[in-house]
Amino acid sequence: MSIVEIGKGKSGRRAYALEEIGIVPSRRTRHPDEVSIAWQIDAYRFELPLVVAPMDSVVSPATAVQIGRLGGLAALDLEGLWTRFDDPEPLLAEAAELDDAAATRRLQQIYSEPIKEELIGRRIEEIRSAGVTTAARLSPQRTVRYYKAVIDAGVDIFVIRGTTVSAEHVSGQSEPLNLKQFIYELDVPVIVGGCATYTAALHLMRTGAAGVLVGFGGGSGHTTAAVLGVKVPMATAIADVAAARRDYLDESGGRYVHVIADGGMSLSGDIAKALALGADAVMVGSPFARAAQAPGRGYHWGSEAHHQDLPRGARVKVGTIGTLEQILHGPSTMADGSMNLMGALRRTMATSGYSDLKEFQRVEVVVTPSTAAR
Amino acid sequence: MSIVEIGKGKSGRRAYALEEIGIVPSRRTRHPDEVSIAWQIDAYRFELPLVVAPMDSVVSPATAVQIGRLGGLAALDLEGLWTRFDDPEPLLAEAAELDDAAATRRLQQIYSEPIKEELIGRRIEEIRSAGVTTAARLSPQRTVRYYKAVIDAGVDIFVIRGTTVSAEHVSGQSEPLNLKQFIYELDVPVIVGGCATYTAALHLMRTGAAGVLVGFGGGSGHTTAAVLGVKVPMATAIADVAAARRDYLDESGGRYVHVIADGGMSLSGDIAKALALGADAVMVGSPFARAAQAPGRGYHWGSEAHHQDLPRGARVKVGTIGTLEQILHGPSTMADGSMNLMGALRRTMATSGYSDLKEFQRVEVVVTPSTAAR
Amino acid sequence: MSIVEIGKGKSGRRAYALEEIGIVPSRRTRHPDEVSIAWQIDAYRFELPLVVAPMDSVVSPATAVQIGRLGGLAALDLEGLWTRFDDPEPLLAEAAELDDAAATRRLQQIYSEPIKEELIGRRIEEIRSAGVTTAARLSPQRTVRYYKAVIDAGVDIFVIRGTTVSAEHVSGQSEPLNLKQFIYELDVPVIVGGCATYTAALHLMRTGAAGVLVGFGGGSGHTTAAVLGVKVPMATAIADVAAARRDYLDESGGRYVHVIADGGMSLSGDIAKALALGADAVMVGSPFARAAQAPGRGYHWGSEAHHQDLPRGARVKVGTIGTLEQILHGPSTMADGSMNLMGALRRTMATSGYSDLKEFQRVEVVVTPSTAAR
Amino acid sequence: MSIVEIGKGKSGRRAYALEEIGIVPSRRTRHPDEVSIAWQIDAYRFELPLVVAPMDSVVSPATAVQIGRLGGLAALDLEGLWTRFDDPEPLLAEAAELDDAAATRRLQQIYSEPIKEELIGRRIEEIRSAGVTTAARLSPQRTVRYYKAVIDAGVDIFVIRGTTVSAEHVSGQSEPLNLKQFIYELDVPVIVGGCATYTAALHLMRTGAAGVLVGFGGGSGHTTAAVLGVKVPMATAIADVAAARRDYLDESGGRYVHVIADGGMSLSGDIAKALALGADAVMVGSPFARAAQAPGRGYHWGSEAHHQDLPRGARVKVGTIGTLEQILHGPSTMADGSMNLMGALRRTMATSGYSDLKEFQRVEVVVTPSTAAR
Repeated sequence: MSIVEIGKGKSGRRAYALEEIGIVPSRRTRHPDEVSIAWQIDAYRFELPLVVAPMDSVVSPATAVQIGRLGGLAALDLEGLWTRFDDPEPLLAEAAELDDAAATRRLQQIYSEPIKEELIGRRIEEIRSAGVTTAARLSPQRTVRYYKAVIDAGVDIFVIRGTTVSAEHVSGQSEPLNLKQFIYELDVPVIVGGCATYTAALHLMRTGAAGVLVGFGGGSGHTTAAVLGVKVPMATAIADVAAARRDYLDESGGRYVHVIADGGMSLSGDIAKALALGADAVMVGSPFARAAQAPGRGYHWGSEAHHQDLPRGARVKVGTIGTLEQILHGPSTMADGSMNLMGALRRTMATSGYSDLKEFQRVEVVVTPSTAAR
Repeated sequence: MSIVEIGKGKSGRRAYALEEIGIVPSRRTRHPDEVSIAWQIDAYRFELPLVVAPMDSVVSPATAVQIGRLGGLAALDLEGLWTRFDDPEPLLAEAAELDDAAATRRLQQIYSEPIKEELIGRRIEEIRSAGVTTAARLSPQRTVRYYKAVIDAGVDIFVIRGTTVSAEHVSGQSEPLNLKQFIYELDVPVIVGGCATYTAALHLMRTGAAGVLVGFGGGSGHTTAAVLGVKVPMATAIADVAAARRDYLDESGGRYVHVIADGGMSLSGDIAKALALGADAVMVGSPFARAAQAPGRGYHWGSEAHHQDLPRGARVKVGTIGTLEQILHGPSTMADGSMNLMGALRRTMATSGYSDLKEFQRVEVVVTPSTAAR
Repeated sequence: MSIVEIGKGKSGRRAYALEEIGIVPSRRTRHPDEVSIAWQIDAYRFELPLVVAPMDSVVSPATAVQIGRLGGLAALDLEGLWTRFDDPEPLLAEAAELDDAAATRRLQQIYSEPIKEELIGRRIEEIRSAGVTTAARLSPQRTVRYYKAVIDAGVDIFVIRGTTVSAEHVSGQSEPLNLKQFIYELDVPVIVGGCATYTAALHLMRTGAAGVLVGFGGGSGHTTAAVLGVKVPMATAIADVAAARRDYLDESGGRYVHVIADGGMSLSGDIAKALALGADAVMVGSPFARAAQAPGRGYHWGSEAHHQDLPRGARVKVGTIGTLEQILHGPSTMADGSMNLMGALRRTMATSGYSDLKEFQRVEVVVTPSTAAR
Repeated sequence: MSIVEIGKGKSGRRAYALEEIGIVPSRRTRHPDEVSIAWQIDAYRFELPLVVAPMDSVVSPATAVQIGRLGGLAALDLEGLWTRFDDPEPLLAEAAELDDAAATRRLQQIYSEPIKEELIGRRIEEIRSAGVTTAARLSPQRTVRYYKAVIDAGVDIFVIRGTTVSAEHVSGQSEPLNLKQFIYELDVPVIVGGCATYTAALHLMRTGAAGVLVGFGGGSGHTTAAVLGVKVPMATAIADVAAARRDYLDESGGRYVHVIADGGMSLSGDIAKALALGADAVMVGSPFARAAQAPGRGYHWGSEAHHQDLPRGARVKVGTIGTLEQILHGPSTMADGSMNLMGALRRTMATSGYSDLKEFQRVEVVVTPSTAAR
């Protein structure tokens, strides 16, 4: 661990961003068709190591079904438009028409509409009835209030996701969510995060979570670093949490908690790097906002963008480049890493000589300055 | 301390900028409402750890009162327009209309008007009469000449601020300000700076100052690095001076001199980082130049910008984004760290699990290249 | 070797890009006319240490002849337009007229035309009949199928070039190319690559190759880093493979395998750096796409640009700046390193005091951040 | 000395650019009026530590006189327009009217006019007759041929300046300049360079030179790094050569050879940094191309820009900002480090607590990434 002295009164560790990492092929190569990128968490097996992020610009009940059929998993945001409005389509259409200057303020207004508990069950059912695995997200603040509706609706995988989620939320006022007890009592697997350090992740693993989300505010349009000063570059965060997984595996006598890199991956190469650094799967949003079917209609935003007092993300224009299928499986007609994300991953693994994701976590990487982009 | 050999004849220390720092949340989280960001210096207690910088584009008697009522402290520049002109409003209006090419030259002309001693007392009284804590600034060069007028007017906190202020000004010509004797004889607490090193700060602390300003020429529009070659990145400077505070506390048998980071913080995340690195409070200018009430009318400049022979700062357009209250306390309608500065600080501390500023100085930080901005 | 801990679970080596390298003149200087930049591989001697890359925008039978007459070697891509079409000129003209948005898709269509085996021999003969050394390229995937046609046509130097080529391609489905046996049975020298590590290069050297290509996807318009996450900066790759050459020389009892840097060199200074780091020669494409005679008519693309499922390179506009002769030998009328590539190399060597390329590999270099470009 | 392994076959030293350096004020301050920036080389004393570079866009006989009267020294290029043409004014006017695309080619044509030996003496006499110290430059290639004319004209300081000058030029064809013998036989002090390493500088010092120029191709518009790959960042080069000065002082029993930083300093802060790193004086061109009196009429180019085969510099537009006097001594009306260069230097030294240049070479500096510009 490389600790640098910032000044006489403070030291800090040198941490690395995905942009600073390059994957190094080994001396073997394979054919992409002979590579498996399947991922299994708890009882659920997916053809792809991918959770599409719970963001209104990307996941609607309809796209959740489509993504499921294409081999991935999509998590619906239960605190987004689909649980605030019977029919959010007109609002999604409006959000895509706003000019940049007005967007934050109008999103704040739209999202000030209260959540309607009855819509939670209805939305999950819309996905479930199509026969795909369902995943849905609540923030830690609202989990106690709404989780029963989620469970009752028969969700398969429960996602608790906030900017930072800790196993130990200290409060003198209210009784906070006791994650350990909560997860213990649930029958469904829980994915929880974000976190970004070895210690925070280890504590989350001890709550019984099936998976932890690594990262906070690292995604497209997020401004956590500017607003809060909080920044833990993803490469270091993933590698740290992967070490926590290994140590917890030993400590727990064999419980393997999945490490899911969340945020800051907008190109197929970023996904490969996250897995190379030790992630079991990735949670990705922005590439799918560019799908023809995306509810955001070429725009992308996360729940940070409509915080009522302190928005920490922008609505960004990403454009539309192809179908969900093309973005996942190609064929790609763009040479920039934005299409055929899964084909690209297969090729990276084949080029590097690895045949499954667990092996690929051992691939050699180099550190190189991001400005030397070649 | 990491010393690098620049060449065979010269070595230097690696120093870090705020842009290279990221705050790392611990394994605990708290609710923002349970966080205190109160700051006390000498007998004065403030709800916010904030001194608004003595710059004509930001602090007038009127905005000083408003900022005081909002929980902060504003320092009036006693060598600015308010002591040179009976009514500076027409000149402030003109300064906001100048085109960029002509601005430096015209500011030099406007500020060539002599300071009128009688205005010093009048301006302080305008603030005092509103019942808020008063702070006013002189440069070290003019302190001997004008300080009596300042004291007589009943200022609460005396600020001596120059690009670089040393405890030991060497001169064969004039009798320079003897800071130690001067401060000893004054009845009011003195904040003095800038400085940027452990040794310089320690010497300033020994003069009896209540607070030292860390930094020089680091702020918005300042060009000290380009003009003078002088540059000490803020993260290292703050951490060094915080160490001097600790060592002086021991040396003095318990005198706690406040470390106030001054310059280079234009976003709420920068303020959080400065405090995380060991500052007790921050002196900030540019974010408040964007207030509807700001005298600069959407433009911002410091006293460096009108130096008669060697201007070292530009008048920069910053625009107007909201009220002083919004910029301090929100609600924010912008996702870029420019509004709700104090709400953001509370959230950073809550997210990191700290409940007061003194504790927060211990938060973990990482060093990460500023180009990898995610 | 400088290994850094990226996180607790992963470490990686710090690797360097050509942009981070500067050549340091020694205390001697020479006259450029007294410098030799000749290069000999197997029985073939060239006045220039240069292979022009097998890319349709650069090498046609006609330009291969011209480059050969100017002292260099050009490799024809046998999987490009010249073996797919009787007369590719109309398609080359069309490719230069496409707008950027449509280019990738149309290139994919054009290159979906099957390769015609009979054209392989015809194209090689067109070059051979002009009396210059012939070099032609196949991908590893198609080598088994087409190599007989290549050999029968009397090619002098056989180039097997893919994004990554390994000595050990693992496959359960098909019988992959056994490089070692293949090269052993051929009568002509083989240049094979890309590779980027000591180990991969050593294994390629053991196959009997006369030269190995260092690098993958580093060239102009390539997006391997973005699409695959694969990136090994060229400076480190060249220096590693040069070490493999030295170790293999010992291991083999004296076989000197040439190290040919391939990709990422668009300016004359880049070529000098590659040789300074240990390369024996360079494979270069983009500078020649700017020649008046270039088939690309001011546009440039590689085989990655028309991959049917996962294009990993863009067609980029490079413009036309002079004749092939001017670009190779000057006189230059541009001050940016794009013309008189070989005159520039001679001058670098003269300025540094070296008289031949083998000596020049020992020149001192420094590492310096690429952003400090002066 | 920090050596990094670039790859297994090559290591290099980490070298630093001026942009990466910041000057750190000590705990003392002084008044700028009590600072001396005088410089003495051989029998010549100057009020300013400044040689204006021998570039046609900056130094004509007329501006050489003006600069001399303002306290500096200007070197006339004896291989420029003033020795090729009786009246270069029309050509200077034309050079300032060319569009960028055509500039390099037209400069090559203009400078293909032969040097007229009789003009050498005439131009030196034009400066000498005004009573200021004269300095004139030849390249090493032409020194043997023309130096008699220079000496006969009574030049005070002889400058031999090329991109790289070595004490040991190896040639089998012609008899190169034997610097040691040449300087020994001359009666006037010689300044020679560029060089960039300890060893090369030490060898130049042993030739008997009064001063050595540090740097090559580092200046405004130069493209040596792009064209030749040769780059030694100035901060490291200056600090290395300053060490050579100290060691040669010992070796020679007391001969102090002046270290003159040459190139890459376009702002006043850069000049201060060069002196802080150990230079005795600076050779500067581009800031003076912005003077109303500059022959370049707002454009700037060096001798590299008109090399007949391999131009390595561009003609760049710099604009006109004030008089020579303002640029040297102020008052400045620009806040960006481009005016009052000498006043800025005085202030840097005063702010740092130093009273003369020799002391100032000991000032503390830090290394900080150039991208963190605050």
